[in-house]
Amino acid sequence: MKDLHDMTIPTYDDVLAAHARIAPYIHRTPILTSSYLNALTGAELFFKCENFQKAGAFKVRGASNAVFGLSDEMAARGVATHSSGNHALSLSYAAGRRGIPCHVVMPRTAPEAKKAAVRGYGGIITECEPSTTSREAVFAEVQAATGAEFVHPYNDPRVIAGQATCSKELLEQVEGLDAVIAPIGGGGMVAGTCLTLSNIAPHIEIFAAEPEQADDAYRSFKAGHIIADDAPVTIADGLKVPLKELTWHFVSNHVTDILTASEEEIIAAMKLTWQRMKIVIEASCAVPLATILKNPDIFAGKRVGVIITGGNGDMDTLPWIKQ
Amino acid sequence: MKDLHDMTIPTYDDVLAAHARIAPYIHRTPILTSSYLNALTGAELFFKCENFQKAGAFKVRGASNAVFGLSDEMAARGVATHSSGNHALSLSYAAGRRGIPCHVVMPRTAPEAKKAAVRGYGGIITECEPSTTSREAVFAEVQAATGAEFVHPYNDPRVIAGQATCSKELLEQVEGLDAVIAPIGGGGMVAGTCLTLSNIAPHIEIFAAEPEQADDAYRSFKAGHIIADDAPVTIADGLKVPLKELTWHFVSNHVTDILTASEEEIIAAMKLTWQRMKIVIEASCAVPLATILKNPDIFAGKRVGVIITGGNGDMDTLPWIKQ
Repeated sequence: MKDLHDMTIPTYDDVLAAHARIAPYIHRTPILTSSYLNALTGAELFFKCENFQKAGAFKVRGASNAVFGLSDEMAARGVATHSSGNHALSLSYAAGRRGIPCHVVMPRTAPEAKKAAVRGYGGIITECEPSTTSREAVFAEVQAATGAEFVHPYNDPRVIAGQATCSKELLEQVEGLDAVIAPIGGGGMVAGTCLTLSNIAPHIEIFAAEPEQADDAYRSFKAGHIIADDAPVTIADGLKVPLKELTWHFVSNHVTDILTASEEEIIAAMKLTWQRMKIVIEASCAVPLATILKNPDIFAGKRVGVIITGGNGDMDTLPWIKQ
Repeated sequence: MKDLHDMTIPTYDDVLAAHARIAPYIHRTPILTSSYLNALTGAELFFKCENFQKAGAFKVRGASNAVFGLSDEMAARGVATHSSGNHALSLSYAAGRRGIPCHVVMPRTAPEAKKAAVRGYGGIITECEPSTTSREAVFAEVQAATGAEFVHPYNDPRVIAGQATCSKELLEQVEGLDAVIAPIGGGGMVAGTCLTLSNIAPHIEIFAAEPEQADDAYRSFKAGHIIADDAPVTIADGLKVPLKELTWHFVSNHVTDILTASEEEIIAAMKLTWQRMKIVIEASCAVPLATILKNPDIFAGKRVGVIITGGNGDMDTLPWIKQ
């Protein structure tokens, strides 16, 4: 599969251009604070609530930047991806706003709720068998038939420049931050955070938070080269994917440290967030708070931006309740 | 029990004084919108998110106004109430901020979680038997022993003036509203809304939303005098209490209409709010959205302020999932 259409490393000028381009299609999401969680952690936490973002996740920033940056000619052929998570929703949303088709290749075994959500945002689903071979073959067919532009969920400079607008807003909204922490899966959000902070606030530390059970980024960071997990199992299902060369470039150059949390710690932090902050977040978004609670020595006394990446969880189960 | 210590009808000057008095102790809560819910209802909805309020509910406004309006001499003896819900949490929080005791009489059969929450905010619990006779007797003993000032959850001019600051903020945050809707139980929030709107925006319609299974306010409104329910059963457990003379004064004079919703409609609206708005709300707060969805003829095309009253629900069950 071709996914190296343009491996130019995005610059901060690309971030400024992205923010101007996507502003009409995204929310400037609010910052929430919790005196309870501040007391509990000894830090001052500023939660950037991308769970309130359009399509329910930060991924709409990168997807919108890719979609609205296309020439009219390219846009007419539509966009395509094979994510079945928030990127598929976000790309469908952005394509819908531009009035162009969005093709999403999904395994026929994917939950009906996910398929319905993609269709709800106007995405056109082509089903494949639940294997990498089938997915790549079907995706190639869709691309050949439509000429649609592939937009990778994270290993794409347009996507990273879009995600970088999140920490740009965070810096505009909160003064005097000492650190920013975000969950890491493929690394799109963390790479975007690095892109913004390394350019306009290089004194701010950047932490990435990862499930212990899908700690490929942690191990890559310690080893100094990309290590991919083999089918990790974690409740933080947005964080199972591996780093790729472009996100690795930013992570390896600018991240202060990668911290991990167990499944139990993630679930406890998720419940605490629902209960105390009254916001619905995905399990993936609870990983940063879990690592902050676990590492008071790192965060106490600091002003910390915490990126809440999305809120598209399953509403019919609570991970802290045995079924 | 004496709960008619001062039945002066509060004025808008009292609201202005209340807002200045309580500002250091409360959040100016944000307004959230949802393009999905706007499309679904045909209205423009502006959700005033008191679920993000201190102690998790709007009741901290009235409780803080009562606590911080006391003379030093009265304050030294503390405050007391016999609510076991959000008012008890809010009064405990406000008393804690002033550094005075808050006595809460609760049935010994009340859930441990509720007792723990009151204690968590510094409230001092005295247990009674689960009967009105015992509650009144124990409450009288506590008051006699301490000289604490009774703060009724809603039938108190200080409390109503405090709750009225919520719609004052709403009007400052959203221009051109056509209507405001809030849930109604004892009527404290609705009375406060009436107090503000009748004084500074009398053209805005005021709707109250009530569970069908606890429709005493609806029946009172139609009958023209207070009718109390006998032990109503509803998932919206903040809305079981009856109107009292002071709240009835405002409701009977200024409310446009009272609308009701079934348990199923309330639960569906609650799930929709968690799922689409990514916020945790109590069942009581879902009643307004349920009635808006049920009455498109009333709300379509209008700009409607919807007061989300609180977020202190049980985090271990989901009402839309059979246990």
